[in-house]
Amino acid sequence: MSQLLRVQNFNVSADGFGAGDGQSLERPFGHADPGTMFAWAGATASWPNRTDPGGSRGLDDYFTRDFANNIGAEIMGAHKFSPHRGPWENYDWKGWWGDEPPFHTPVFVMTHHLRPSFTLSDTTFHFTDDDPATVLERAREAAQGKDVRLGGGASVIREFLEADLVDTLHVAVSPKIELGSGARLWESPDELRDRFHLDIVPSPGGDVIHHLFWRK
Amino acid sequence: MSQLLRVQNFNVSADGFGAGDGQSLERPFGHADPGTMFAWAGATASWPNRTDPGGSRGLDDYFTRDFANNIGAEIMGAHKFSPHRGPWENYDWKGWWGDEPPFHTPVFVMTHHLRPSFTLSDTTFHFTDDDPATVLERAREAAQGKDVRLGGGASVIREFLEADLVDTLHVAVSPKIELGSGARLWESPDELRDRFHLDIVPSPGGDVIHHLFWRK
Repeated sequence: MSQLLRVQNFNVSADGFGAGDGQSLERPFGHADPGTMFAWAGATASWPNRTDPGGSRGLDDYFTRDFANNIGAEIMGAHKFSPHRGPWENYDWKGWWGDEPPFHTPVFVMTHHLRPSFTLSDTTFHFTDDDPATVLERAREAAQGKDVRLGGGASVIREFLEADLVDTLHVAVSPKIELGSGARLWESPDELRDRFHLDIVPSPGGDVIHHLFWRK
Repeated sequence: MSQLLRVQNFNVSADGFGAGDGQSLERPFGHADPGTMFAWAGATASWPNRTDPGGSRGLDDYFTRDFANNIGAEIMGAHKFSPHRGPWENYDWKGWWGDEPPFHTPVFVMTHHLRPSFTLSDTTFHFTDDDPATVLERAREAAQGKDVRLGGGASVIREFLEADLVDTLHVAVSPKIELGSGARLWESPDELRDRFHLDIVPSPGGDVIHHLFWRK
C-alpha cells in the first residue's frame, strides 16, 4: 500500500477557521479558545494529553486514537511550531509541547527562518523552506513506509491541497463556534467535493461534526 | 493504560444474530450470507482481505483499520476456528484463513477438544478449555502490554459479557438483514446499557449501523 498524506483531527469553527487572529505565546490559537474547540477530543480516553484515567471510548475516541495509527512523520507550518515571527534571535524556543512532544516521529516545520534540527524525547524537529512536494518526499522517506500526517495550520493544509498532495482529511467542525476571522481552511467543505468523497458524521455527543474526505 | 478486552467489527443481523444455523465447511456462517453482512467492511481500503487497490476511506474504514490497532492477541470460539464438532480425528484443519491468517498475533481458541499449538506465518493458534478469566489472563500475557481482541462468535462474546470481562465492543448491525435463527448475540443492544455507554452511529453508506459500547 502506498504512503498516504493524511490530515488528522484538524479542528475548525462553523465558519471554517482553524485558529483566530492574534497568535501569541499566551494564546497559541489567537482569539479562538482551544479548550472549547478541542473539548470533544479532550473528553476521550485516547487524548494524548490526558492526565487522569477514564474518558469516553465511543465514536470520538476512534479519531483521537487514529492520530498516530501508522503515522511515521508529520509536516507542520511555522505557526503551529511557534508564535515567533521573523528570524530566530536564539534557539531557546523548542515548541509548545514541553519535554515530551506528542508526535514521537520526525517533524518537518515549513518556515523561511531555518535553524538546526533538534530532538526532544522521541520527536526530532527539522526546519525546511522547500516547496510542498519536496518536503513531502523528505517526510515520506523519514516515515519509513508509514503514512505522513499533515498537521496544519490551515494555510499549510491549503497549500498542500492546492498542490493536490493530500490523500485523506479528517476535519472536526465545531458547529456552535463562530470565529469571524483568523486562519481560514475553507468557506465551505463543499469546495473539496470535486476531488474528494465526503462522509459527514455528527458525533452522538453533539459538539462536533466529523468530516472525512478521501481522494476520488 | 491498562490492557483492554475489545470486541472489534463483530457483525450481527437486525435481529441480533452473528451467524445463521447449519455451519459447514462450505457455509462458515450457516444460512447467513457473509458477503452481504460484511459488504460494508469489504468496501473499505483497510479491509485485510482486499486484493485490489482502492476502497473507501470514510467512516467505515476507521473501523476496519482499527481492527489490529494496539491488539496483541485474540480469543475466539471453537466455531470461529472450525466447522468440526467433537474430537479431532487428525490435525489437518488449520483454520479457514489459508497460509496467511489475518491475525498476526497469538490466538487462543476456546474448545473442549484440545490439540497442540501450531504457527502459520506470524499467527500462532493455542487451544484451551480454561474458563474465560483464565484464558484472558493468558492472552494478556501473550499480548505483551497491548489490548486483547475478543473475536467471537456470539456465544463466546456472551460468555465473556456474563463474566463482566469485556471493556469495549464495536458491533456492526446490518439493518436490512434478518436471520430469524442462529447464533444470537442479543435480543436488543439495550440489554447492555446498564453496564455500558453506547454511541449509535449510522454509516453514511446506509448498510450498517455501528454500535460502540464502553464500560461505565
